[in-house]
Amino acid sequence: MAKSNKKYMELALELARRGYGDVEPNPMVGCVIVKDDRIIGRGWHKNYGGPHAEINALEDCLKNGHDPAGSTICVTLEPCCHTGKTGPCTDAIINAKAAKVIAAMEDPSDKVAGKGLAALSQAGIRVSVGTCRKQAMLLNPAFIKYSKTGLPWVILKWAQTLDGKLAAAEINDENRWISGDAARKDVHKLRRSCQAVLTGTGTLLADDPLLTPRPDKGKKPLRVVLDRELKIPIESNMVKTAGEFPVLVITSVKAEKNSEKTPVLREKGIEVMGIEPADGKIRLQTVLKELGSRKIQRLLVEAGPRLLTAFMQDNLADEAVIYSAPKLLGAAGTADINREITSAGIKPTLYHTETALLGYDTRIRAMFRHVSQIAQAEF
Amino acid sequence: MAKSNKKYMELALELARRGYGDVEPNPMVGCVIVKDDRIIGRGWHKNYGGPHAEINALEDCLKNGHDPAGSTICVTLEPCCHTGKTGPCTDAIINAKAAKVIAAMEDPSDKVAGKGLAALSQAGIRVSVGTCRKQAMLLNPAFIKYSKTGLPWVILKWAQTLDGKLAAAEINDENRWISGDAARKDVHKLRRSCQAVLTGTGTLLADDPLLTPRPDKGKKPLRVVLDRELKIPIESNMVKTAGEFPVLVITSVKAEKNSEKTPVLREKGIEVMGIEPADGKIRLQTVLKELGSRKIQRLLVEAGPRLLTAFMQDNLADEAVIYSAPKLLGAAGTADINREITSAGIKPTLYHTETALLGYDTRIRAMFRHVSQIAQAEF
Repeated sequence: MAKSNKKYMELALELARRGYGDVEPNPMVGCVIVKDDRIIGRGWHKNYGGPHAEINALEDCLKNGHDPAGSTICVTLEPCCHTGKTGPCTDAIINAKAAKVIAAMEDPSDKVAGKGLAALSQAGIRVSVGTCRKQAMLLNPAFIKYSKTGLPWVILKWAQTLDGKLAAAEINDENRWISGDAARKDVHKLRRSCQAVLTGTGTLLADDPLLTPRPDKGKKPLRVVLDRELKIPIESNMVKTAGEFPVLVITSVKAEKNSEKTPVLREKGIEVMGIEPADGKIRLQTVLKELGSRKIQRLLVEAGPRLLTAFMQDNLADEAVIYSAPKLLGAAGTADINREITSAGIKPTLYHTETALLGYDTRIRAMFRHVSQIAQAEF
Repeated sequence: MAKSNKKYMELALELARRGYGDVEPNPMVGCVIVKDDRIIGRGWHKNYGGPHAEINALEDCLKNGHDPAGSTICVTLEPCCHTGKTGPCTDAIINAKAAKVIAAMEDPSDKVAGKGLAALSQAGIRVSVGTCRKQAMLLNPAFIKYSKTGLPWVILKWAQTLDGKLAAAEINDENRWISGDAARKDVHKLRRSCQAVLTGTGTLLADDPLLTPRPDKGKKPLRVVLDRELKIPIESNMVKTAGEFPVLVITSVKAEKNSEKTPVLREKGIEVMGIEPADGKIRLQTVLKELGSRKIQRLLVEAGPRLLTAFMQDNLADEAVIYSAPKLLGAAGTADINREITSAGIKPTLYHTETALLGYDTRIRAMFRHVSQIAQAEF
């Protein structure tokens, strides 16, 4: 029985992943309903604000002509017991007369935190928690971190050549992109899964990026620019599109107060925020606290080697998504992430690594923290 | 018709690849025999000294109860017309009464060089050449280069982290290998496909490598050490195994003549060869000429960043096989290929790149030359 529970939970985890890029900042959740060792319903949380996985799985049961009464419900996260954008899942499960609920992990958010399982138990439903707990935690580490600390999960993203160059020194039409189409498409999905995308002045001036997800599919992650001296050009793509996609420029208190640019940017709908620098720098920890207070759960950092490395150096990086292109640039390359990490003296350890081919490129996803650190909120 | 020829030739190319690691220094060759738009025989060159692809395909025909008379034979390389380790394929084809032979490319070696096709034509068989020529050339570039220049095809191999480190600075049981099991197994196959494996003193002293293919499957590539000052330790693994797998130590004339190590190494069955250095260095071009004269067609270079980069710098590198592991070492790493290539001022361009996942690692195979340069013997 324990063995088949694991099998069903793995399927539920697989279903959960289908929500990637659509459900955030909600967690990805999957659900499988089993009766007489047969799957009678499947569901997953499909999009932010939509019905939860359990509701979709119960509906799938009924649609297929099955009665969930007496069934076992395998779900990758403890069912909710509060009325948020949807009604409580516990009520739906109790009404469906399920016999047992197996959850992979407790919901760490204050609103649930064991209360969902308790409600089920009180209604006479057997509950168990912990099947495939590790995989379930690795599915939604940002949700866990944010629930426990109020801080965003920081994802460092870069596309590099085999020899660690993020760009060609002299850009032309042929070398403009380090990675290929499939990898670039993947980046847009990654952006859709995040509530904010952060960059620095260097990248802004060098690349004039939009940093929007394309297509956006209704997702409008906040674009954050760390710009201590307020160098952002009024003519930049980011300023031009501030009406459609929000922009937050974080600068020094001095620049915010004194720069002639501040009112111009504000008039264009850009939020300009001054933070008092410490040792001449805007502290990344302060930025994360600010973004956390704005409910940013997943923060994507798309920046140059220096800012990327600064997050590692301050032990603020949680995850890396690296697109590695099968190219060597050598002396024709610039923005050398390898050199930056090495000369900063950092010795990064990557955990829970996944590798995938995207066309000719490879995508490496890994975490800077072991799942046990995430569980204990050691950030 | 032309379209289906292409389809059959692509199948023949696929069959040819099965010989990789076994047939070298012979070329990989595949053959498909077609009659009434139906495949009646398949064959490929399976191992060095064994029957050629055409012979195997004709045998396959007969085994399946088909008569090759009147058939079209698609073969990835011009059939041979000389008696080497096996009889001439042209005779077998003529005896089989084939109607047509389609070859992807001419055999560039002196012994054939069009004479095979001429013999077939003279016997009344229609011949055509050039279907999938590019793919056929990319299959056996070493065979082409060696036939045209007498020089080995130089393959640079290294295993690196994402940040271009070839090794951990402090080796322990956990970080001894940069790449995983599948990649290391692949390296042994790569060694079996080469007639010599070359390294430098630095790697020899740091890693004490064997550089043998394991299992060797009867292949005993010559192990070549560039060791100008004859620093090779008598107690090294390579010296210890010199009785089983040949070793050639290339040093300066001075060291060869004066070192006390020379007679000791020779006594252990190692060949010690002195080359007059130019500007204090053993010229790689001279080494390649020497190895070419010893019928080394595929030379694998497994060395540190400096020697690998020297081959690129002298424009002597033909192919790269790079195993990229999803790790960052940063300041904990050493042997930085990225830094070496960059500081040498090289701007490498890779052609005909193939990417494959091997476990968690990625293997990148690419050429430093475009196929058109190979065709024109521009080395």
